[in-house]
Amino acid sequence: MHTLVIGLGSMGFGAAVSCVRQGIKTTGFDLNPEALKRFEAEGGLAAAALETCQGIDCVLIFVVNASQAQSVLFDSALFDALNPEALVINCVTLAPSTAVDIANRVEAQGFRYIDAPVSGGAAKALQGRMSIMASGSRHAMMDAQPVFDAIAEHVFELGDTAGHGSQMKLINQLLAGVHIAAAAEAMNLAASLDMDLQKVIEVISQCAGSSWMFENRAPHIADGDYRPLSSVNIFVKDLGIVTDEASHQQVVTPLSDAALALYREASDAGLGGEDDSAVVKVLAKQSNVTLPGSRQ
Amino acid sequence: MHTLVIGLGSMGFGAAVSCVRQGIKTTGFDLNPEALKRFEAEGGLAAAALETCQGIDCVLIFVVNASQAQSVLFDSALFDALNPEALVINCVTLAPSTAVDIANRVEAQGFRYIDAPVSGGAAKALQGRMSIMASGSRHAMMDAQPVFDAIAEHVFELGDTAGHGSQMKLINQLLAGVHIAAAAEAMNLAASLDMDLQKVIEVISQCAGSSWMFENRAPHIADGDYRPLSSVNIFVKDLGIVTDEASHQQVVTPLSDAALALYREASDAGLGGEDDSAVVKVLAKQSNVTLPGSRQ
Repeated sequence: MHTLVIGLGSMGFGAAVSCVRQGIKTTGFDLNPEALKRFEAEGGLAAAALETCQGIDCVLIFVVNASQAQSVLFDSALFDALNPEALVINCVTLAPSTAVDIANRVEAQGFRYIDAPVSGGAAKALQGRMSIMASGSRHAMMDAQPVFDAIAEHVFELGDTAGHGSQMKLINQLLAGVHIAAAAEAMNLAASLDMDLQKVIEVISQCAGSSWMFENRAPHIADGDYRPLSSVNIFVKDLGIVTDEASHQQVVTPLSDAALALYREASDAGLGGEDDSAVVKVLAKQSNVTLPGSRQ
Repeated sequence: MHTLVIGLGSMGFGAAVSCVRQGIKTTGFDLNPEALKRFEAEGGLAAAALETCQGIDCVLIFVVNASQAQSVLFDSALFDALNPEALVINCVTLAPSTAVDIANRVEAQGFRYIDAPVSGGAAKALQGRMSIMASGSRHAMMDAQPVFDAIAEHVFELGDTAGHGSQMKLINQLLAGVHIAAAAEAMNLAASLDMDLQKVIEVISQCAGSSWMFENRAPHIADGDYRPLSSVNIFVKDLGIVTDEASHQQVVTPLSDAALALYREASDAGLGGEDDSAVVKVLAKQSNVTLPGSRQ
């Protein structure tokens, strides 16, 4: 099963390398030549243009957002490279209604579509241990199994049509985005009280106030290390999708609204490319709090 | 070591019973005669009035709030019941500055004070497995060890003066209160999208969006079961302490503010005595969402 991975960023690169390790013939495509070189060094095949690809049975899409996904699907040579009934597995986080729309257009061309947003972070992706929130026809899911086995630890099968996968990712991103902002708020208050931040992490991680994101991101704040695992701008985008979808449903989301405002302020302050935990810098500035690693 | 437990609510009752089980001579005091009867049935000694108590070496305070704690300490016969240098272990959630103030007044009477707010919930309390965020003199902590061993799984020693324990509890309650509100917001949005709520819990619990509170409280919402483990009014109080302390430090807390507004709205709507996850009912009403267990 010749597999093409489009977008060799942190998640896509991990998925592509995991496929190679499982003996799947895998071609990677990215606009960044450095990413292609890194992939070739791992034993993958590099494509500098989609026009050079052919005979693809399965394509995994790992671009940044809905507009890039639509562009690569509908405004490129991709469909010419695909075999009939090829699997199109879209791993991009996008609105459920967009997932349904894209699925309809892809299936109208005779290809099969799986709505398959992922979770887990770059480290797990590189180990072939991401989580996939997947929905698509039973038959497509079965044919995708070798690829899913290569890249994922958990594959949640959420329904036989597109949209269900993206709905679950939406709920996950709501919680993840709010929890990172809450971790930042808690660490900023703790810093203002001159608490030992390492001790805060040690204790809270064993108490009812803990979250996956607190355990993962609070150490970045305590260490003053904002090298991006996932960036502020990812949550500007993803909480934007959450609040748009909620507005569309006429559903109130006061916590997501408050968190999104923080990510936007951070992005506007030039922190968009830093780790998402850098939202704490917005809070610290507004509160006159000195954080670890910041200039006095 | 004759121990007196004041306040036999869900946490205090669990602590008192755990002391009895470890062979510590334990007297319980509560204004509710039913609570006293239940404690006697577990082998404890019941005191209907503090005037009848004497020879107490250690008192554990488990009343609801700072004002009750101050009243039982300074406007009752408690001090007459205490032996010289008795241990006063205050497990009530209160502002760090209040903890310092109370400690000073207790120590001025010749007693020893431990600032010891707790976490873990009623079920763990009953198993002698709560968590204690403790600060107090090294000597007092050593003497308290048999009681801590009886009631707690984790004792975090956070410093040699009062206030440090309450600071950590403050941070925990900020996170816990925001995470419950976030879980409610996520479940309400999922319900509006007609998602399978049990599936949401199953998937999110294994993804980056999870939190201790999500795993614990989201099932209440999916089951439509709002019998209180911990009530809405507890978080009206505790997030009130968080935001007061933050204001005092001139620290901004936009997520705590948004969550506190929800708990207050729930309390104003007559839901104060329900499980804290009942904040979801405020969101559902504002969003015209029908939740499990609600009247159509």
